[in-house]
Amino acid sequence: VRELNHETITDAVVQSFAGTPDARLKEILTSLVTHLHDFAREVRLTEAEWSAGIDFLTRVGHMCNDKRQEFILLSDTLGLSMLVTAMNNPTAKGSTEATVFGPFHVAGAPHYKHGEDVSNGAVGTPCEVSGRVLALDGTPIPDATIEVWQADDDGLYDVQRPDLEQAQARGVLRSGSRGEFHFKSIVPSSYPIPHDGPVGDMLAATNRHPWRPAHLHFMISAPGYKTLVTHVFRSGDRYLESDAVFGVRSSLVADWNVGDDGICRLNYDFVLNSANAE
Amino acid sequence: VRELNHETITDAVVQSFAGTPDARLKEILTSLVTHLHDFAREVRLTEAEWSAGIDFLTRVGHMCNDKRQEFILLSDTLGLSMLVTAMNNPTAKGSTEATVFGPFHVAGAPHYKHGEDVSNGAVGTPCEVSGRVLALDGTPIPDATIEVWQADDDGLYDVQRPDLEQAQARGVLRSGSRGEFHFKSIVPSSYPIPHDGPVGDMLAATNRHPWRPAHLHFMISAPGYKTLVTHVFRSGDRYLESDAVFGVRSSLVADWNVGDDGICRLNYDFVLNSANAE
Repeated sequence: VRELNHETITDAVVQSFAGTPDARLKEILTSLVTHLHDFAREVRLTEAEWSAGIDFLTRVGHMCNDKRQEFILLSDTLGLSMLVTAMNNPTAKGSTEATVFGPFHVAGAPHYKHGEDVSNGAVGTPCEVSGRVLALDGTPIPDATIEVWQADDDGLYDVQRPDLEQAQARGVLRSGSRGEFHFKSIVPSSYPIPHDGPVGDMLAATNRHPWRPAHLHFMISAPGYKTLVTHVFRSGDRYLESDAVFGVRSSLVADWNVGDDGICRLNYDFVLNSANAE
Repeated sequence: VRELNHETITDAVVQSFAGTPDARLKEILTSLVTHLHDFAREVRLTEAEWSAGIDFLTRVGHMCNDKRQEFILLSDTLGLSMLVTAMNNPTAKGSTEATVFGPFHVAGAPHYKHGEDVSNGAVGTPCEVSGRVLALDGTPIPDATIEVWQADDDGLYDVQRPDLEQAQARGVLRSGSRGEFHFKSIVPSSYPIPHDGPVGDMLAATNRHPWRPAHLHFMISAPGYKTLVTHVFRSGDRYLESDAVFGVRSSLVADWNVGDDGICRLNYDFVLNSANAE
């Protein structure tokens, strides 16, 4: 019979994965188990703390439904999401930086034509957004798919309003022949991530605030180019230095300016990497 | 604005916990985040793999209810439970070794007198179990609380039978004045841990079997002594070398012997550590 102690058990668990057919799965599980065990030994995790961890993860799981993804919030607030995003989206010089996807994207958002108002009734200060989708060499990318989504003046996305039946402050556009796009929406507001669950409890217990600086989400895709998932952040926001999910990049901070005509405008160009870029 | 990349983000997340009032929580989160990030970098986790991980954990969470604890099964099958048990229950020379608690303990099990049958109708080969509860110096420990629970011949615990209303094959006894106890039950069978959920999928994907060697669970407590959570395993079981949860200790393997009278018997003494022992 194997005589395992709290040191030798790690090798035994790694060995138990020796017959894994998928080499990549085996690599991931081996690394995961090694780090998980190292963590438990490093802090000398007690049985009560282990039990509290089981309870915490169970609460996180029970909080997840088709409108709420608490495990993504946990990954976001522990910086894992941004780490994975940054590692997998190295920025070619001149291309737009990526940032976290977040839990509020919805597939099948309504399509809009240039100039239309994607806010669709969401409450906030009206604004106009324009820009271009470009390749690294400055060539316009026509017919790119541009998905945009954002929070309203209350700091809520439409999916956080259970009584709302239509999509608000989200939509899909196509870039024009010169790569251009423009649409109407509302000025984004800073907002707290949902913090009435276990992730909120974790933030409270660590004296961290749940706020994200105001931003517009974009996902931009076009054949031959690497899909870009990013935000445009609003300059001057008080949370730019302490984003709860570590997503801010200075290159993604832009001004919403009020023009002489009293209209608030954002102009921002997106530069896509080619699909073959590493 | 902070310029974080996939290397520097770890320090930023650790710094975000700087204001945690509870020093122990801060220590645990710092180590957890560091190992979590190191894992993601080490395997160069892709966005699709991250997403698969979020889905897996969400499924684990949704599988948990008042009868099923899939996160404990996950911890068990990754060896974390046994690591934590071993680390927190160093065995003084001569004391009984601890092993995993498992997910099938139920508080408030029925009390039995010596000689009574704790199987309470569970199907299996009848047997008699006896032994003593002792201190390290051999002194008997009277009036110790002895909780016992086990699977039946189908490899199921009572809580895995939704239609069953009474407790079966579990009970609470008190040791007598000479530390002794004896009760009737059934011979335990090897059994697969519940593997119709995501943990079972993980085992299948890694060519691991879900079986545990046959065992009786014991939790023994007495004032002045460290509570002992352990099993007695049945010698000769084919899964002793490959327990799905890494819980076997050779000192915990014992014989269920059929006597000349045709009765199957187990005799096993438990030796408790003093409560002050490290």
